[in-house]
Amino acid sequence: MDVPEVPSKVDPDSLTAVLDGRWAELRRGVRAQMAGTEFRDPIDLATEPHRAQVLDQLRALAATDRPGLGFDPAYGGGGDVGGSVTSFEMLGYGDLSLMVKAGVQWGLFGGAVQLLGTEGHHERYLRSIVNLDLLGCFAMTEHGHGSDVQHLRTTATYEDGGFVVHTPDPMAQKEYIGNAARDGRMAVVFAQLITGGESRGVHAFLVPIRDTEGNPLPGVSIEDCGPKAGLNGVDNGRLSFDHVRVPREALLNRFGDVDENGTYSSPIESDSRRFFTMLGTLIRGRVSVGGSAGSATKRALALAIRYGEHRRQFATPDGEEVVILDYLAHQRKLLPALAKTYALHFAQEELVSKLHDIDSSAPEEEQRELESRAAGLKALNTWHATATIQAAREACGGAGYLAENLLPGLKADTDVFTTFEGDNTVLLQLVAKGLLTSYKQDFQDLSPLATARFFAEQVVSAVLERTSARKAVEALTEGSDAEVFFRREWQLRLFEDREEHVVEGVAKRLRKAASDPFGVFNSAQDHVLRAGRVHVERLVLTAFAAAIERCEDPDARTLLERVCDLYALSAIEEDLAWFLGHGRLTASRGKAVTAAVNGLCAQLRPHARALVDAFAIPEQFLAAPMLKS
Amino acid sequence: MDVPEVPSKVDPDSLTAVLDGRWAELRRGVRAQMAGTEFRDPIDLATEPHRAQVLDQLRALAATDRPGLGFDPAYGGGGDVGGSVTSFEMLGYGDLSLMVKAGVQWGLFGGAVQLLGTEGHHERYLRSIVNLDLLGCFAMTEHGHGSDVQHLRTTATYEDGGFVVHTPDPMAQKEYIGNAARDGRMAVVFAQLITGGESRGVHAFLVPIRDTEGNPLPGVSIEDCGPKAGLNGVDNGRLSFDHVRVPREALLNRFGDVDENGTYSSPIESDSRRFFTMLGTLIRGRVSVGGSAGSATKRALALAIRYGEHRRQFATPDGEEVVILDYLAHQRKLLPALAKTYALHFAQEELVSKLHDIDSSAPEEEQRELESRAAGLKALNTWHATATIQAAREACGGAGYLAENLLPGLKADTDVFTTFEGDNTVLLQLVAKGLLTSYKQDFQDLSPLATARFFAEQVVSAVLERTSARKAVEALTEGSDAEVFFRREWQLRLFEDREEHVVEGVAKRLRKAASDPFGVFNSAQDHVLRAGRVHVERLVLTAFAAAIERCEDPDARTLLERVCDLYALSAIEEDLAWFLGHGRLTASRGKAVTAAVNGLCAQLRPHARALVDAFAIPEQFLAAPMLKS
Repeated sequence: MDVPEVPSKVDPDSLTAVLDGRWAELRRGVRAQMAGTEFRDPIDLATEPHRAQVLDQLRALAATDRPGLGFDPAYGGGGDVGGSVTSFEMLGYGDLSLMVKAGVQWGLFGGAVQLLGTEGHHERYLRSIVNLDLLGCFAMTEHGHGSDVQHLRTTATYEDGGFVVHTPDPMAQKEYIGNAARDGRMAVVFAQLITGGESRGVHAFLVPIRDTEGNPLPGVSIEDCGPKAGLNGVDNGRLSFDHVRVPREALLNRFGDVDENGTYSSPIESDSRRFFTMLGTLIRGRVSVGGSAGSATKRALALAIRYGEHRRQFATPDGEEVVILDYLAHQRKLLPALAKTYALHFAQEELVSKLHDIDSSAPEEEQRELESRAAGLKALNTWHATATIQAAREACGGAGYLAENLLPGLKADTDVFTTFEGDNTVLLQLVAKGLLTSYKQDFQDLSPLATARFFAEQVVSAVLERTSARKAVEALTEGSDAEVFFRREWQLRLFEDREEHVVEGVAKRLRKAASDPFGVFNSAQDHVLRAGRVHVERLVLTAFAAAIERCEDPDARTLLERVCDLYALSAIEEDLAWFLGHGRLTASRGKAVTAAVNGLCAQLRPHARALVDAFAIPEQFLAAPMLKS
Repeated sequence: MDVPEVPSKVDPDSLTAVLDGRWAELRRGVRAQMAGTEFRDPIDLATEPHRAQVLDQLRALAATDRPGLGFDPAYGGGGDVGGSVTSFEMLGYGDLSLMVKAGVQWGLFGGAVQLLGTEGHHERYLRSIVNLDLLGCFAMTEHGHGSDVQHLRTTATYEDGGFVVHTPDPMAQKEYIGNAARDGRMAVVFAQLITGGESRGVHAFLVPIRDTEGNPLPGVSIEDCGPKAGLNGVDNGRLSFDHVRVPREALLNRFGDVDENGTYSSPIESDSRRFFTMLGTLIRGRVSVGGSAGSATKRALALAIRYGEHRRQFATPDGEEVVILDYLAHQRKLLPALAKTYALHFAQEELVSKLHDIDSSAPEEEQRELESRAAGLKALNTWHATATIQAAREACGGAGYLAENLLPGLKADTDVFTTFEGDNTVLLQLVAKGLLTSYKQDFQDLSPLATARFFAEQVVSAVLERTSARKAVEALTEGSDAEVFFRREWQLRLFEDREEHVVEGVAKRLRKAASDPFGVFNSAQDHVLRAGRVHVERLVLTAFAAAIERCEDPDARTLLERVCDLYALSAIEEDLAWFLGHGRLTASRGKAVTAAVNGLCAQLRPHARALVDAFAIPEQFLAAPMLKS
């Protein structure tokens, strides 16, 4: 297969300029700071010194103005939401425990105070949260409820002018709470608000958990979650409350309040809708996890590709040993993953921009669409991280298994990303639900039952109507393989067509849900998940294509065109059974896709190093002994 | 899709009887021993106490007669090769550091002395190797050569009646050597034998490395490899030698010897063929790694399936929360993997039997075929372990990330299995090579160059002739979906046909190799790997079908029939693009395959617990707190 040519040499800096995008200056600043030796990796540190090192690193970050970026300028913040999320993403190049600890403190704890609280809370707490005088936790997940947070069981009952926070049973214990086991002094606790004997759904409360000496306050029990697969620099713990009294003002009351008489009021009538609106304001955490998963993936690929250019094994006819990245099988392990990493980077960049630009007066559908995009990209980014870091480890053989070569830490730390800040499987269901309901319903109610019930209603017919306006599929088959494969419009049309078909199929299946909502939902669950995935893949390809348009260096641009082709064609190859089975590709064209992927691997092989150098990862995070000898 | 019914209840003991197979009594004995608390998991142990614990456990094993099973009865051994390998497999239920340490000591070190040495070595060392008076290492891999061991650079030069073992440069340093960093007193060192100025290829030498106090001997440098992703109870180290003198008898001289005058002799003339014959005798290690990967996979599935039956999330219409294993997506994550685990178990059992039964007078092709099977099953078993343990971790959400719930240890320990004892990618090339050459060539010479050169010769035409006798493919399409899908013969024919077609395709591609051996090999590498994989998948299905015939309990047998269907149909679904693209399945039949997999998941769901209970894993290795609350 003839693959369009690429320039013989491309300057990584030109690629970095495109990758850095809108927050380029901020990225340069974070990079420069992270090059400092205080941000070193925690090779072979025991838990306690590791936790201490991460807290020191957190304080070093607090000395800059970046932790405040996401906060209100009225309280010393930067008012730069996109910059804030981007700086979390950049922390993903270093020790991921630091990224998570920073995310808990400033993203989740601080974010909840800012976004769920009101002026009094901001005035009282935001400055000390930013400067770390007040270390806090985000206590949502419980032992018995993680994905289904609407049914948390901790209670906050209004009595005698304040709230009594209580853990009624062991399943209601707060679980995996970052900052809880060692450093946190206060927690934002999510609990069922009860007043006048009536429950008003889940709300957030500020609950002090430790005194100034660090001892648990009366009524608060704290356990350490103990060793984890990774992220051992983060002190995850369990919290439970035995009738702990907090004042009325402890309620973060932006979306719901209780007056002195115990009367509840809220701008949003439905308890469920209110709760999912509250959750929706907290998407920055999910966006940050997706972004930092991308950073960890870039680091793993940079290590594996450098090793692949360094390590030799088996001789060629001329007697010289072959650099292992010259083997097709090795290219196949790493280069399509590298292309997808570029693609997800640009999609993430676009997401961050949308998050930054949306304002509170935006139509609700727009907010829901943003939440869907955040959920979907978090899922794809983190699954991609897990798979790619695994492949990178294997591509480095025994060397990749030694802690000093950094891949074991990356693997262990990122492993939980697929299931925290929203389990990926559940998140893809949320994406599919948005597609089917045009983002009009109580969006984050993820229960299968709630999802299924929609489809006893008229919602589905709207979907069917929308997708029936499908453009002619014939356009997909015009031209020779080599002519169509490298045409962006053809690739996009193929992705769009697949999405339309899958979404339509799901809608048809779910129309029968009235009779047996759970059964019908469950038997269509694989299609539901596919709908979510293919939708996000289409968004990703669109974002990559748009980013190329912004590239000014013609050589870099040509190279990125081929990287984008590799992303698109390897995604098609991965789902080839679908494209063949639904008549979108003929058998011979299907084989040609594989040939094209191989051809692109060969074309991009000489640029692999430039493509990872363009990530501009501080060298101390790539200082693996395996690359030196 | 109507799926054949299964009995409402099947006794796990009946399944255990089939799984236990030929070495059932031995398996029961190992299980009983491993239930002892001294074999506990190493949750949160630092490296040094973990190493100490594993050495204590090794001594506890040495107190039984099992470590001697694989050795010659003349020196106190059991002469039971299959039993020996099976007991390594069973160790995979516990701390995998112990399995690896035992494998290094008795399998690799002891195995090399037995299989590469002669009577004098046996007399002098075997008893003390079995009873642990002599702890040893297997020093093959070097810093610069892992897969390409034929080109190791350590030298052993015959001078003045003995050998001088020497590390000529840093790339020749022995790397990742188990037992080297702490406990080993002696090493089997693989080195280029040089006598009279001539190199005779790689041979094995017994080299003492530490004195009785544990200090390195003069000329021997030992480094600790430091922390690893997992297996930190094994003391991997680096060895280098500065002109270390050993006596002439240090040469393990079964396949090549040097007399007092320095004259070399060997029963095998070709240096290359001799070396690969030596390697071939050492396949027990590879077989054991595949088996213990299977055990670790079983443990991960037992944990995740128990959790899937215990954990509830989201309510159904009747208000009760759903057990997560009732969700189709959750079944999809675990049940096809469970079916494949059964399939690989039976294939492994068959491999062990063949290994046990082969005698030294067997035709060379038979020995090569056994080596190929060991290589291929090691690759599939270990990749399956990596993927399945990952899926099991994700299926347990946050709980799966806590060390106390055992999955993190399983994931970290098994991660290296895909690249040690032969890198899986290289091993699949070996399998493909065997298929193409009818096992007639210097088999383990894995270099692409050597592989490619065959295909400039007449070898390929033999392959083409063999496969052209293909049975009619039409038989594959007769009958309705439901009629053919659950017919074993249809499944087998589909697997065979795929293998024939892929092998034939590779042969055709490689015929052009004379002009540019490396280029032609490299551009066909993805097809070469596919040939290896589909061949092994066919062996696996055949082995599963044969095992079912041995099942006496009719209910257990019916259940196993469905498990085998799930293995076969999910393997077809995974490779659906191939079957569609090559006209083996129609588009509508392709969709029906997915429906059949879903239907089988639903049928097997109520039996999931029995299917993992049948592994009879000692309860202490399943004592995860997440299963209790």
